[in-house]
Amino acid sequence: MLDDIAVIGRDSRTGGYRRFAWSDADMELREWFAGEAAGRGMELVEDGNGNQFAWWGAGDDALLIGSHLDSVPDGGAYDGPLGVVSSFAAIDQLRAEGFAPSRPVVVGNFADEEGARFGIACAGSQLITGALDPAKALGLKDRDGLTLAEVLTARGRDPRAVGRTDLLDSIGTFVELHVEQGRSLIHSDAAVGVATAIWPHGRWRLDFCGEANHAGATLMEDRHDPMQAYAATVLASRRLATDAGARATFGRLEVEPGGTNAIPSRVRAWLDARAADEGQLDDLVDALVHQARAAADPDGTTVTLTTESVSPAVEFDAPLRDRLAALLDAPVLPTGAGHDAGVLSPHVPTAMLFVRNPTGVSHSPEEFAEDADCAAGVDALASVVRGMA
Amino acid sequence: MLDDIAVIGRDSRTGGYRRFAWSDADMELREWFAGEAAGRGMELVEDGNGNQFAWWGAGDDALLIGSHLDSVPDGGAYDGPLGVVSSFAAIDQLRAEGFAPSRPVVVGNFADEEGARFGIACAGSQLITGALDPAKALGLKDRDGLTLAEVLTARGRDPRAVGRTDLLDSIGTFVELHVEQGRSLIHSDAAVGVATAIWPHGRWRLDFCGEANHAGATLMEDRHDPMQAYAATVLASRRLATDAGARATFGRLEVEPGGTNAIPSRVRAWLDARAADEGQLDDLVDALVHQARAAADPDGTTVTLTTESVSPAVEFDAPLRDRLAALLDAPVLPTGAGHDAGVLSPHVPTAMLFVRNPTGVSHSPEEFAEDADCAAGVDALASVVRGMA
Repeated sequence: MLDDIAVIGRDSRTGGYRRFAWSDADMELREWFAGEAAGRGMELVEDGNGNQFAWWGAGDDALLIGSHLDSVPDGGAYDGPLGVVSSFAAIDQLRAEGFAPSRPVVVGNFADEEGARFGIACAGSQLITGALDPAKALGLKDRDGLTLAEVLTARGRDPRAVGRTDLLDSIGTFVELHVEQGRSLIHSDAAVGVATAIWPHGRWRLDFCGEANHAGATLMEDRHDPMQAYAATVLASRRLATDAGARATFGRLEVEPGGTNAIPSRVRAWLDARAADEGQLDDLVDALVHQARAAADPDGTTVTLTTESVSPAVEFDAPLRDRLAALLDAPVLPTGAGHDAGVLSPHVPTAMLFVRNPTGVSHSPEEFAEDADCAAGVDALASVVRGMA
Repeated sequence: MLDDIAVIGRDSRTGGYRRFAWSDADMELREWFAGEAAGRGMELVEDGNGNQFAWWGAGDDALLIGSHLDSVPDGGAYDGPLGVVSSFAAIDQLRAEGFAPSRPVVVGNFADEEGARFGIACAGSQLITGALDPAKALGLKDRDGLTLAEVLTARGRDPRAVGRTDLLDSIGTFVELHVEQGRSLIHSDAAVGVATAIWPHGRWRLDFCGEANHAGATLMEDRHDPMQAYAATVLASRRLATDAGARATFGRLEVEPGGTNAIPSRVRAWLDARAADEGQLDDLVDALVHQARAAADPDGTTVTLTTESVSPAVEFDAPLRDRLAALLDAPVLPTGAGHDAGVLSPHVPTAMLFVRNPTGVSHSPEEFAEDADCAAGVDALASVVRGMA
């Protein structure tokens, strides 16, 4: 099934995927999902937020499995799709065995998990749980200035249907399978692990503002160049995050006016930061902004901080985690990455399974999992369904 | 006249100008130039490179005055246009006096001086003098992937006409008036100065390459994040340029893949560097690349350097400079900024006049010159024509 969708949204230059929410690639993946559901005689339900659910059986207390199909810019083939295709494959395996579930089993595809287009991660799961305000979501703009409301309308969806739905009330358990984004399983004998927790994490925008001027005619001493404080902040982010055992990344940047021969007037940088608990995360961001301002002040430039989103720490349901670890004889591990499972966790008993990643690389065309490990993931999901439905 | 063109190509958000070569704004400015020429009964000649020339009189050994009309991104109202409108205004003043020139007087508008669209500054003057290879120029691409050849064709120009023309043979002297890009005249009593020289300067592209990965799940110690070496290089650029009395600027940047939650795979940064002589400029760039590599090596990232353009030092024609300084009783000063005058200088006796800039700011919406100083610039140009034609 991964081969079937391998060509969708792939950039021929980088080999990475650009499957942004509601893009042509995303629409094609949605059709593929609908086709897989129809081919298995599963009823397809799409909520007002664009989350797709394929139902095997009907009723309450359903066991939801699945993940997402969208990607970061130049993402890999596994982050998201592995959980969706493994869910369908597990169902195929169980049906081949003649297994009949005692509760509904649902495969889910959550909309806009990566937030690559509108800037807020896990938008689909945040909307269905009410964690994200529909009016705020509908007003989010992509880089072309289109709002989510405009994009949904263009794709034949009704923006008024966005928000919390009672569909969630029929879900009794959620188990998301995902490629590991890290190296914990490499040195383990296990191809599959069970998640204990998701670190708190967030996105902040730092605007470094100075004064545009001529790159050739302006003395170094006369400049108010905001790139200097930005650079000092990047170096400080590594020092501070390393010392705290945390993570800090600057991966997106806009420079104005952006001419080779013009000193910038503004450097707008996005910080992604994560830490083991919320106090440590706050301390990290505070220390970083303090250092940014200390670098900017002598240059006569300024730094303003805007919080774009913060996700609190998630401790997955302990009885469910222990049950899966015993059922699968799998190790347990935490993760620094956010997931729809983390968003659903406060509302529904939720667990995550990670499939070993031989390089630890993700969010990159080099992201990979061995076929044997992917098969082990399918087996694990099938075991979970067999044991819990 | 500056008021007449004040609305053309102005970004309503920043107040800066975006008059890129062959853009709609540039086409409108070309029409404005043609109208000014026609209104004064001056014959308009456009060479194959898009350089416009308005002739008062005919024959050889012409006195060329003028500048350019295009801008950097978010540029100011004076850089370029001040020289063109002052030239027309000087002619109006001389005609009102009844002055009849003994040699042709030509107002010029050089194409794509800033290089904001295709990356090479002074493209129009470099092509007419043969300093830039026509085939290389025609293959240059803008950010949308359009080549100069495609853009010229779309604008009704013939790409085969690009290159050196014998029009230059009829020019005996070039005097370019320009707003000062610096602060040398602020502390002087003079509103107008005469240029001695242009520093050598160039544009280099530095590609910092690493490995994309997940911003949350990748330990700081496991990263190959090229943003770190870029940041170290930005800080080093200020130290090195300040110590050498030179200039180094990073004003344009592209980050790939550019996602907030992805460690970059590549940071592509453009360096603008200038120094008092070519040896110092080479030393500056060498030292900077050395420091960039020293920062990248321990991270397992790499830096590659590509020279995009280097302009040698220009010493303006000494007899002409001295004649103008005496004629105008004006101070002489060097500049770190490149100009079409610098490109024409090896081919035609050339001089530059600078009009005082009260803040020194240029390449910015804040660029400014007092009305009285602009009028002094027109008087100076009129004196030059009166004295030399």
